[in-house]
Formats: sequence, C-alpha cells, structure tokens
Amino acid sequence: MPVTSHEVARLAGVSQPTVSRALRDDPRVSERTKQVVREAAAQLGYVRSEAGRTLSSGRTRRIALLVTDLENQFYVRIIAPVHRRLATLGYQLTLQTESSDDEGIVERLVSAGVDGVVLATPPVESVTPIRLRDRGIPFVYFNRTSSSVEADAVVVTPDAAYDTAAQRAAALGHRRAGAILGPVATSTARARETSLRHALTSHGIAVDERFVRRATFDSDAGEEAMQSLLAENAEMPSLLFCANDLVAFGALNTAHRAGVAVPGRVSVVGFDDLPAARWPVIDLATIACDYEEMARVAAELIVERIDDFTPPPQRREFVAQFVERGTLGPAAV
Amino acid sequence: MPVTSHEVARLAGVSQPTVSRALRDDPRVSERTKQVVREAAAQLGYVRSEAGRTLSSGRTRRIALLVTDLENQFYVRIIAPVHRRLATLGYQLTLQTESSDDEGIVERLVSAGVDGVVLATPPVESVTPIRLRDRGIPFVYFNRTSSSVEADAVVVTPDAAYDTAAQRAAALGHRRAGAILGPVATSTARARETSLRHALTSHGIAVDERFVRRATFDSDAGEEAMQSLLAENAEMPSLLFCANDLVAFGALNTAHRAGVAVPGRVSVVGFDDLPAARWPVIDLATIACDYEEMARVAAELIVERIDDFTPPPQRREFVAQFVERGTLGPAAV
Repeated sequence: MPVTSHEVARLAGVSQPTVSRALRDDPRVSERTKQVVREAAAQLGYVRSEAGRTLSSGRTRRIALLVTDLENQFYVRIIAPVHRRLATLGYQLTLQTESSDDEGIVERLVSAGVDGVVLATPPVESVTPIRLRDRGIPFVYFNRTSSSVEADAVVVTPDAAYDTAAQRAAALGHRRAGAILGPVATSTARARETSLRHALTSHGIAVDERFVRRATFDSDAGEEAMQSLLAENAEMPSLLFCANDLVAFGALNTAHRAGVAVPGRVSVVGFDDLPAARWPVIDLATIACDYEEMARVAAELIVERIDDFTPPPQRREFVAQFVERGTLGPAAV
Repeated sequence: MPVTSHEVARLAGVSQPTVSRALRDDPRVSERTKQVVREAAAQLGYVRSEAGRTLSSGRTRRIALLVTDLENQFYVRIIAPVHRRLATLGYQLTLQTESSDDEGIVERLVSAGVDGVVLATPPVESVTPIRLRDRGIPFVYFNRTSSSVEADAVVVTPDAAYDTAAQRAAALGHRRAGAILGPVATSTARARETSLRHALTSHGIAVDERFVRRATFDSDAGEEAMQSLLAENAEMPSLLFCANDLVAFGALNTAHRAGVAVPGRVSVVGFDDLPAARWPVIDLATIACDYEEMARVAAELIVERIDDFTPPPQRREFVAQFVERGTLGPAAV
C-alpha cells in the first residue's frame, strides 16, 4: 500500500487539502507549514500522485469550464472569477461547450488534454458526469448538480432567502402566490421550487396551482409565461415568484405592455440579483448569491481534486439572501 | 517554386477560398466543384500547406477566442455563434483570456496548440497582434482592430446608422448634442466618434464640447458620466449619444434617480441593441448590428486563413442600422 496524503496530514497535524496545497507550493500555505508537510512526506516516503501523473501522462495545467447550455448566459458571470483564481493557482481556463448531451464532448476534452472540468449547467439526467468519471477526468459541479454521479459541488442554499421573502410578503398582506418555475430537468429549479413552496406554506401564503407555469431560464420564456398567466380568467394572485431574474424581466415586460401595475396589481420576485435588477427603472426584488465567491471556490476544489482524487466529494453550500426592492409591495386589496 | 492554391484556382476557374474549402471537404462547396478542384490540384501537383502542417506540426483543430478585456461582456454575444460555425467547419472553440497586455498570453496559446485566434477586444496599442504575427499564429480581428498589424478583420461601419439617427433627431428639433464617448484606446470608440461627429454636423446639430465625456464601455461608467454632465451649471443639450448600450443604461439610471425626464428633458441614443434595449421599460433608441453574422464570418475567415496564409488580409464591413425607440423624442423647448 502506498502512503496516502491523509497519513501525511495526520503526521504533520494539518488537513489533507493543506498537504496537497503545501506540496504544490500554493501561496495560501505559510512557509512554516510547507516545511512541516515536506518533512512529514519525506519521513513517510510519500510520493504525490500528481508527480507520477506529470511524468506518465503530462499535466497540461488547463481546466475546462464545460457549459452544456450555451443559451443560458449564467455562466458568463463566473468566467472572470474562475479564470483569475485558476491563474493564481497556476492553471489556465478554457471554455468548452456542448449542445445537449453531445456524444463527443468527453472525447474532445480528453484530446484537448484538460486536467479537470468545472461543469456549469448539466441537466439532471446528463450522462456527461458518467462519461467524465469513466474516463477518470476530475470535475466539480458548479451551481447545478446531476443525480448520476457524486462529485465535488458548489451550490446555493435558497431556504433562508425564500423564508425571509415569504415572511416579508406575508407582512405586506399577500395570501396567495403564483410562480413561473424553471425546467424540471435542472437541479436548481427543483431545489428552488421545494424551498419556495415550503417557505410560502410556513408563512400562510397559498400557492395557487392555476397560476404556476414552467419556463426555461430566459426572458422570452418569462414573457410568454406571464402572457399565459394574464390570459387566465380567474383572479391573478397578488404575488409572483420567478425562476430567475431573466424570467422576472420577461414577466415585467409583459406586465408593462398589458398595463398591469407592478407592484400595484402584482408583486414580482426574481432570483440571481443580476446587475439590471438594481437599475432604478427595474428595481426588482430578488434573491442574491455570491456567485463570484462560489466561482473562486469551484476553482480551488477542482485544483485540489486534481492533486488528490482520494478524499470523499465535498459539497460547499452558499446561503442566498433576500434583497427587497420596489417590485414587492403591499398586496392589492 | 511550389504550386500555389491561386494557380489551382485559375485552372479550376474558381476563387482561391473555394479551392481551400473544396480541398478540406467543406459542405458549402458542391460535389461537382470539389471534383473540378481536386482534378486541377492533381494536374498541377498541388500539395496543401495544411496537409504539410498536419504532418510536421500536428494540427489541433482548436481555435481560441482571445478576450483581452474580460470585464467587457460584449464577447459573450459571439461565443455561441463562433462556436457553432467552427463546429460545422470541424474546429473546436476555446476561450482564452488575458489581463491588459499580459506578456505570457501568446506563449500560452502556443503551448495550448491552437491553430488560430479570433481576437475580440484588443486596445489599439496592444502588442498581442505583433506577438501573434511573430509566432506565426493566424488571427482575425473581431469588431475592434489594432493599428500594429494588418490582419483579416470583421468590423462594423456605423456611418449610415449615425446619419439616419442625426437626420431623425434634426427633424425632431434637436440642434445641440452631448456625448458619452468610449475609451480613446479602442478602435470602435474612435470610429464611432468620427462617424457621429460627421453625421451631426451634416444635419445641423452642434456638438457641445462642454457636454462630452469619455467612459469605459460599462453601465457604472455611464452612470458616473451622466452625473458629471448633470452637475454642469450650463444648460444641458436636448440630445445625448452614448458609446454603447451599457453606457446608455447607466445614463438612464442616473437620469431616473435625478428626476430628469427621458426623452422629455433629454433624448438618449445607445449603440449595440442589447436585448434589454428592447424591454418596454427601457425602450432605448440605439444602433443595431448583426453581431451573430459577424461572428460566423469571423469563424470562416480564421479557418480560411489557417488553410492558406498567402492571400492579402480581408476586411469585412457590416453596415449598422439605426433603431428608433422611445428614448428619442422631440427636443425640449
């Protein structure tokens, strides 16, 4: 049995990730700790798997951001922070794209010689994670996860944010809500729906199922869903939750064209806190998450995973926050 | 002297690019033409430089989209169309980024083994084009060009669009304009300024230099520039041109906060026709260009250039169009 990084960690009295970082000379580890780790590794005769791989297969120090849904411009927000964090860790970022479950993508990643992958937008049923695992390519889920393979993941926890939003809405007199939910095929839409329904129920707001729609995560879909909601004969609820800000922008556009006052007639809440949500002419109540920090953590996780594939997968949860703005007002009476 | 693709083109009675396309089995060329070209090539004993390079240096069929200004999210709009067009031509897209004139970027492109580069946002004085030329890496300028090296380029021609905008503004009674111009270090800002000034003068609208500012191409810069304009004591002109839509959105935000009516007090015109410009709550008059088609042409030009480096550089100009919307109204009296 070869010596593992965990044994080095125990002897050095540090965590396993610190061992990986120390041995690749990561600037986040102090010189003193690096020295302790190096001595422990030498004492145990530890050989980094990374070093072996460098000799046998040639590390490229390139990491792919794999986007499986190019129309969803969510990934744009994370390119810059992932790129910068990887650069400080001595890695280069390359953007790879596939159209829905393209058979060839994993082969192309292999031939492009990437050391690891940040997987940004897989549908829940995607087979890409299975193929990456089968080819031994380390990867980390960013925001969306897939049920097929466990791996390191950086995700948003929306519970507290929806709870605050529902509490605030209840205080403003809202008793009944509609929703434009995201595609069931995405883990983010599923998690947000569960969290939203729980929060609304907790605060005495009923979900009116006649006013629940599903839409892809873009503003055109939001416009159409809102048209469909407004076309219903029944009385529209006073409150509408949207799968993300793009969908909410679309809903606001339709409301504006139809002369439906927001928040006078219907209050609207988004998700993401895109820059336009803050524009005074939009002023969208929404749920914010620190995607930049999530992106940096994803960069760190994939580098750690490349260095040492043995530890169990890590799941890093980021708690979202409700941001109250003008589109949430008192319930129409 | 080896036989060139131009001689093959003459014998086959087709253009040189058609020869390149036919010999790489591009689907845009008919089977009949491919046959004619193959016969002409065989008759002359023509050997494709591509074939030689594949054997000697190993083509990767990877093309980099090089973004030198990651904060400018303009490049986002072209990722999908460049990616798709390259895929149909048998090439993969990889996104590479650099912070302003990073010394190492060209070396990284060499080590990543890209066959060519689409250069999206170089400042005019960038040395990256010189380094690419010196290392023999084919590249094409997208939208912005640099004065240092001539190369294939896909650019926007704004003259007709600004002429129409100025004519329309003059008809609405505007006689004096201000402007938030882009950075002098970009070829796009320079070209737009020249074109705008010429158009305004032609239609009897004076540029009031007290109300001219420069800003980077983002909405924060637009907000600040508009604050600075509104802080002037002198009477603000009735018309304001903005370097791009993001700058215009920022200016609209500041106007909204300051209670300055658009277009009642000041009309605003952007550039780019971003999706949000069409939102009814924004309704921004702007200048549109078919960036998707430009992106596809850039993909074609770089593949042609990789196949044959001998022809002189091509410059493809796309004519922009004025899009009249709600933020352009009659001049305040």
